[in-house]
Amino acid sequence: MSAADLEKPVPEAADAPVRELSQTFRPVSAGMEAHLNVYHPVLDHGFIAVKDYMGDDLSILQMARMSYGKGTKGLNDDRALLRYLMRHFHTSPFEGCVIKLHVKLPIFVMRQWVRHRTASLNEYSARYSIMPDEFYMPDASQLAVQSKDNKQGRGDTLTPDDSAEVLRILKEEALRNFATYHHLLNADEDGQTIDEGRDGIARELARIGLPLSTYTQMYWQTNLHNLMHFLRLRADPHAQFEIRIFAEKILDIMADWVPVTTEAFRDYQLEASRLSRMDLALVKDMLAGKATLADAGSYGLSKREARELAERLGISA
Amino acid sequence: MSAADLEKPVPEAADAPVRELSQTFRPVSAGMEAHLNVYHPVLDHGFIAVKDYMGDDLSILQMARMSYGKGTKGLNDDRALLRYLMRHFHTSPFEGCVIKLHVKLPIFVMRQWVRHRTASLNEYSARYSIMPDEFYMPDASQLAVQSKDNKQGRGDTLTPDDSAEVLRILKEEALRNFATYHHLLNADEDGQTIDEGRDGIARELARIGLPLSTYTQMYWQTNLHNLMHFLRLRADPHAQFEIRIFAEKILDIMADWVPVTTEAFRDYQLEASRLSRMDLALVKDMLAGKATLADAGSYGLSKREARELAERLGISA
Amino acid sequence: MSAADLEKPVPEAADAPVRELSQTFRPVSAGMEAHLNVYHPVLDHGFIAVKDYMGDDLSILQMARMSYGKGTKGLNDDRALLRYLMRHFHTSPFEGCVIKLHVKLPIFVMRQWVRHRTASLNEYSARYSIMPDEFYMPDASQLAVQSKDNKQGRGDTLTPDDSAEVLRILKEEALRNFATYHHLLNADEDGQTIDEGRDGIARELARIGLPLSTYTQMYWQTNLHNLMHFLRLRADPHAQFEIRIFAEKILDIMADWVPVTTEAFRDYQLEASRLSRMDLALVKDMLAGKATLADAGSYGLSKREARELAERLGISA
Amino acid sequence: MSAADLEKPVPEAADAPVRELSQTFRPVSAGMEAHLNVYHPVLDHGFIAVKDYMGDDLSILQMARMSYGKGTKGLNDDRALLRYLMRHFHTSPFEGCVIKLHVKLPIFVMRQWVRHRTASLNEYSARYSIMPDEFYMPDASQLAVQSKDNKQGRGDTLTPDDSAEVLRILKEEALRNFATYHHLLNADEDGQTIDEGRDGIARELARIGLPLSTYTQMYWQTNLHNLMHFLRLRADPHAQFEIRIFAEKILDIMADWVPVTTEAFRDYQLEASRLSRMDLALVKDMLAGKATLADAGSYGLSKREARELAERLGISA
Repeated sequence: MSAADLEKPVPEAADAPVRELSQTFRPVSAGMEAHLNVYHPVLDHGFIAVKDYMGDDLSILQMARMSYGKGTKGLNDDRALLRYLMRHFHTSPFEGCVIKLHVKLPIFVMRQWVRHRTASLNEYSARYSIMPDEFYMPDASQLAVQSKDNKQGRGDTLTPDDSAEVLRILKEEALRNFATYHHLLNADEDGQTIDEGRDGIARELARIGLPLSTYTQMYWQTNLHNLMHFLRLRADPHAQFEIRIFAEKILDIMADWVPVTTEAFRDYQLEASRLSRMDLALVKDMLAGKATLADAGSYGLSKREARELAERLGISA
Repeated sequence: MSAADLEKPVPEAADAPVRELSQTFRPVSAGMEAHLNVYHPVLDHGFIAVKDYMGDDLSILQMARMSYGKGTKGLNDDRALLRYLMRHFHTSPFEGCVIKLHVKLPIFVMRQWVRHRTASLNEYSARYSIMPDEFYMPDASQLAVQSKDNKQGRGDTLTPDDSAEVLRILKEEALRNFATYHHLLNADEDGQTIDEGRDGIARELARIGLPLSTYTQMYWQTNLHNLMHFLRLRADPHAQFEIRIFAEKILDIMADWVPVTTEAFRDYQLEASRLSRMDLALVKDMLAGKATLADAGSYGLSKREARELAERLGISA
Repeated sequence: MSAADLEKPVPEAADAPVRELSQTFRPVSAGMEAHLNVYHPVLDHGFIAVKDYMGDDLSILQMARMSYGKGTKGLNDDRALLRYLMRHFHTSPFEGCVIKLHVKLPIFVMRQWVRHRTASLNEYSARYSIMPDEFYMPDASQLAVQSKDNKQGRGDTLTPDDSAEVLRILKEEALRNFATYHHLLNADEDGQTIDEGRDGIARELARIGLPLSTYTQMYWQTNLHNLMHFLRLRADPHAQFEIRIFAEKILDIMADWVPVTTEAFRDYQLEASRLSRMDLALVKDMLAGKATLADAGSYGLSKREARELAERLGISA
Repeated sequence: MSAADLEKPVPEAADAPVRELSQTFRPVSAGMEAHLNVYHPVLDHGFIAVKDYMGDDLSILQMARMSYGKGTKGLNDDRALLRYLMRHFHTSPFEGCVIKLHVKLPIFVMRQWVRHRTASLNEYSARYSIMPDEFYMPDASQLAVQSKDNKQGRGDTLTPDDSAEVLRILKEEALRNFATYHHLLNADEDGQTIDEGRDGIARELARIGLPLSTYTQMYWQTNLHNLMHFLRLRADPHAQFEIRIFAEKILDIMADWVPVTTEAFRDYQLEASRLSRMDLALVKDMLAGKATLADAGSYGLSKREARELAERLGISA
């Protein structure tokens, strides 16, 4: 990166990446180099771009092997050792890999994202600068009624007519909010005064009427251990669609960065399943032919737990 | 606290506190007990209430004295030892005190608050529940133009006429946003369906059009060391007024909780001043009669630094 | 706690607890009150004592219910809600409970303990004060050869003769190290000069020859969420015996403090079992009668994984 | 790094660095590249080597500028902006730089080092592997009596005769401890059995008699913000010599990595000085000719504070 790059406007997803090649003695992940400064579009105006990273699959192994010293006979196989670390929750070596992302996202998504505390972040400041006129409009395919089963989720999708009406309302409202924002600031998006005859109010005040759908930006940096925790929660079907789609993009990037780790992460965490003490007792007896799922209650499972266990085991309850 | 208390509606600032007396072998701060479950109003609809706490001035000393063992002759004086700890940034003993607050605050304030990562928090969920129709309207005395000097602050207050107009606009806009919210949900504040003939959209979607001035709630818990860090940043004149007023209320509560610590905090941190290497060299020579503030440039101070030093030293630059 | 308490010597496990009753408006756990300032002996010279705590089962629920707002119909049952939180890893409400312990433990155990970073601690300082002449001698029942299977564990117990010999050697060595320590300090355990005719060296230097078995002390404080993480790792059979016995004592204390949480913790975490993607696929087909454990390899399980799955399912491999 | 590198023994300070050149699109610090995999000796057997890093002076600015958006006119000057960030404790951008070190250090130094919790670390495991026969012997120039003024420090250096005697004792003791260690393990440094006719005890037990001077190793990784916090405490004259010398080496490395940041760090933090509320009031009046240092008491300064202020201001008290 040269100083000149810094003066350029914030890049957009559509821009060609600013990429300058240098030499380094550091570990390099070829798959990740291909992502550097590439702005991947997410949602209608958002993006994700890798700005920097540290480490690769081999550097995770290097940390682990230092720790085990000469006591690691039988762990010469790289893939086997990485899977062993993942399976046994030996998390420290994964902390040795770090990723720094530039993300543009709606404020209501940002509010979920910042709940992950073990990360560094720097957000665009609406006290220093005027917020660009950009807000999130869901795709019609994402507009759905409240779920009946899931207190925090979506159910059936709206009819095309209802969707169109919802989007019309949301858009009209957001446009009016931004128009008011500029009127209160008495400044346009570029900071030019609109009406020389009157004062605008301070930026930190004018923004309080902007909607939660307004786009903001951040640099977000975390280590691979905490990234996997983020992905377990946010690439999960229970996560809100608008953050899940960011998480899924990051999971794709991770697969290019640390492919062996990502495979192990899927096998031992993302697609693994935890059986409670009661689940386990029931499954044991089912395998021994001593019980069926119908006995779940007497093993201490609630109806909901029995239903969820049946789903995980591919049994019709 | 009894189970029955949990079923009561979330208390409001105006309510009498729910307080039940118990016996304990734990350290008790009489000043803090008086705050428990008392809802202090902040801003137009917000509040702060202490829900729980741990530790007092003496428990800080107890931790410190264990650490010093028998090597603490001369530190028998409690107040002197507390001030010594504060002055020398011996921070661990302060971590032994913890405070849990229930706070109701506008979302734009919440967004600043969560940047303090070393804390536990639980926020009201707009995915699970409908947001109450409450939004922040600044007091006319707080409506000001953008500061010319301070990129992130306020300058002169608006005229009464301009204030009234700004408030009228902000209020009208927020009311319209909330009306739209309920229309999209097809549900009123109590969750009752408005029009049986049509579907509403999911709560997690309908809320994206709500303004940043919308009130939310959280339980927020941190230890005294991190609380002081929060207060250094947020009780500072550069903090935005709407978070500063919460910070000042917390500082008042802290003074009742740990009075000796609070006094030391003011003397050695809040009202202390850091002199840079260059500031210090200049002040030394000023005291020795070898320089005046006019020489600041040759000591490496920028004009801004010289101006700020002059202010701190009560010298007209 | 009164100021007078602070001047007393550090209490020992054998002492009667210093307990003073006060009144409080805070949540109180009767089970935990019974532990306050009671010094529980652990290992030969160690102890654990609860010095302070915050929160109980009900206060966890209170945090959770605020978050769900009115969207919690069907979660009126306290026990069911607590179990739901535990099962779905809704961790924030558990952070609202805090425990502060006074622990005396060998340095090699301390070195494992401090790896848990999300905690506050204050340790006895060997720079300020002279280390007491106390070191850990294992019980003969704990003296074992290196495990063949487990790179980091113990195998068969030694014969009584071999044990006696090992203990004799360890004790002789430690006594000599402490004698040297006092000789280098030229001071006895109470800090009295031994030989007026010569200088001792600084405490921070003299201690470098003390063995890792030397006892130290700390105040250690963490929240319930992080405590459970500590217990998952340290109350596990793979943990070294000398830290596991501390963890088991803490688990006992936790059961008195937050009994409903502890039961859920056992059911959904401590005694739960995670099945990998491959484990799950195999178990599904075993239940459907399409596979047996002998097919594990073709499902991608390593021999070790197959063996461990067999153990968990109570099947002879 | 290639897989082959991982099978090599842990490098020693005396070895030529293992360095392989690759291409990267990441920010590169030329000064830091020169340190990669170079093992710098510290103390008698210790070392520090940079294994990986992320970011440089410019990437700090890039993060800051994204945050300020278009509101950063007047901050085009890179050096001025970096100094502004340091001076105003805008710490987030510094978190964007990360360093990963391989450190070999005595256990008593490690015990101070791990108190810095916001870092990732992986240590050599004495449960998995046999500890090498290496222990720290202070240089004679570092052997000193206990300080009279400073409860936790060193005073006058010993006479050559006394030094020689202390070193002889420390060395003899450590050698005996290591001999006992191998006897108890019944294994030499390479893990070869010494006496086929008897059992050794488990590694996790045999090591409890090793001295605190024993060398261990770790990978330690932290971001630049937390590194500066580490350096403020550990490169300070009050830090124990044996950790300070590591900190000073890291400060040298930091100056090559992020030179502009390091200069600002020295000016605004390391060599800056904090004046308390009382200090400041006194200095103001001294500059105005209304007071002298003799009046310190009436401004609320203790005698010790007055003495320390005099030192900082270059005034004989």
